[in-house]
Amino acid sequence: MASIDTPEAHKSRTGLVVDVALRVLLFATALVAIILMVTSKQTKLIPVAPGLAIPKDARFNHSPAFIYFVAALSVASLYSIITGVLSALALMKPAGISTKLQFHFVMFDALLLGIVAAATGAAGGVAYIGLKGNSHTRWNKICNTYGSFCFHFASSILFSLISSITLLLLVWLSLYVLSKKIARR
Amino acid sequence: MASIDTPEAHKSRTGLVVDVALRVLLFATALVAIILMVTSKQTKLIPVAPGLAIPKDARFNHSPAFIYFVAALSVASLYSIITGVLSALALMKPAGISTKLQFHFVMFDALLLGIVAAATGAAGGVAYIGLKGNSHTRWNKICNTYGSFCFHFASSILFSLISSITLLLLVWLSLYVLSKKIARR
Repeated sequence: MASIDTPEAHKSRTGLVVDVALRVLLFATALVAIILMVTSKQTKLIPVAPGLAIPKDARFNHSPAFIYFVAALSVASLYSIITGVLSALALMKPAGISTKLQFHFVMFDALLLGIVAAATGAAGGVAYIGLKGNSHTRWNKICNTYGSFCFHFASSILFSLISSITLLLLVWLSLYVLSKKIARR
Repeated sequence: MASIDTPEAHKSRTGLVVDVALRVLLFATALVAIILMVTSKQTKLIPVAPGLAIPKDARFNHSPAFIYFVAALSVASLYSIITGVLSALALMKPAGISTKLQFHFVMFDALLLGIVAAATGAAGGVAYIGLKGNSHTRWNKICNTYGSFCFHFASSILFSLISSITLLLLVWLSLYVLSKKIARR
């Protein structure tokens, strides 16, 4: 058991604890973002003629950008479960995480970072039009009508932004741990 | 000079050559994407009444998503110049690139990957509305009117997608080279 108590092993262990915590955070934020997006449906009576109003829905799946958003974050949350469990299992072993597994983690973390960041960007770009409209192309804003819908969207995009930042931090953390491994040898 | 001819040093050297090539590709694609986006301006006569038409511009800076897109790709192309030169200088030195510098490269590569992927997503999401419109929110498509404008946009987004993929490949390449360094020691 002496090998666990060396300062290097202790450092690598701290890194692994932070790794698991970040993956739990990734799972939580991605899941909250999905739930907020999927439950954003709002129905409003839209006046079409004097004395006549028809109910109209606003739903996330009216725009392909948001469908991609939900798909990307579902992949991210599924991924965070798998890697989180693997990291937690490695934490229980006295040898810690193997360097090879860690490299595979960073590679997929970087891929997921690209996917989630693109989803956040796409949803943010479209949601901004919904919020402010665009006078040049005469795209009307919809957030004045569908208030709660837009509030759901804004929160969801904020959470997915936190997911992206978490993924970036995961990449940086793994790099830091690996750099310590190289320096140590 | 014997140290250069060992198989390990040779491998690390090949990695560095690919690294420089990828950074040149990143610079080229980011620059082409910016140029295509900035030169996309198109003016059309839009009929407002029978016998009366007014000229109307379509420009990239009418939407904040595209302003962010140009800013992000400008940063990426500037970054690719700096890191490309540093990599090329390391290639000339017999010792190759230092592990510390390489770690800093991967960290910034990952950050840039997030920024460029988000920009591609944002531009893609908004451009898709321009192409197809959105019947639910009554956002009309504009690509039937501004054809060359949209062609510039589509090409620009394609090039920025290549930039994102190049950044991901750069991260993966550095990780591969670093993993070889760990395995070797």
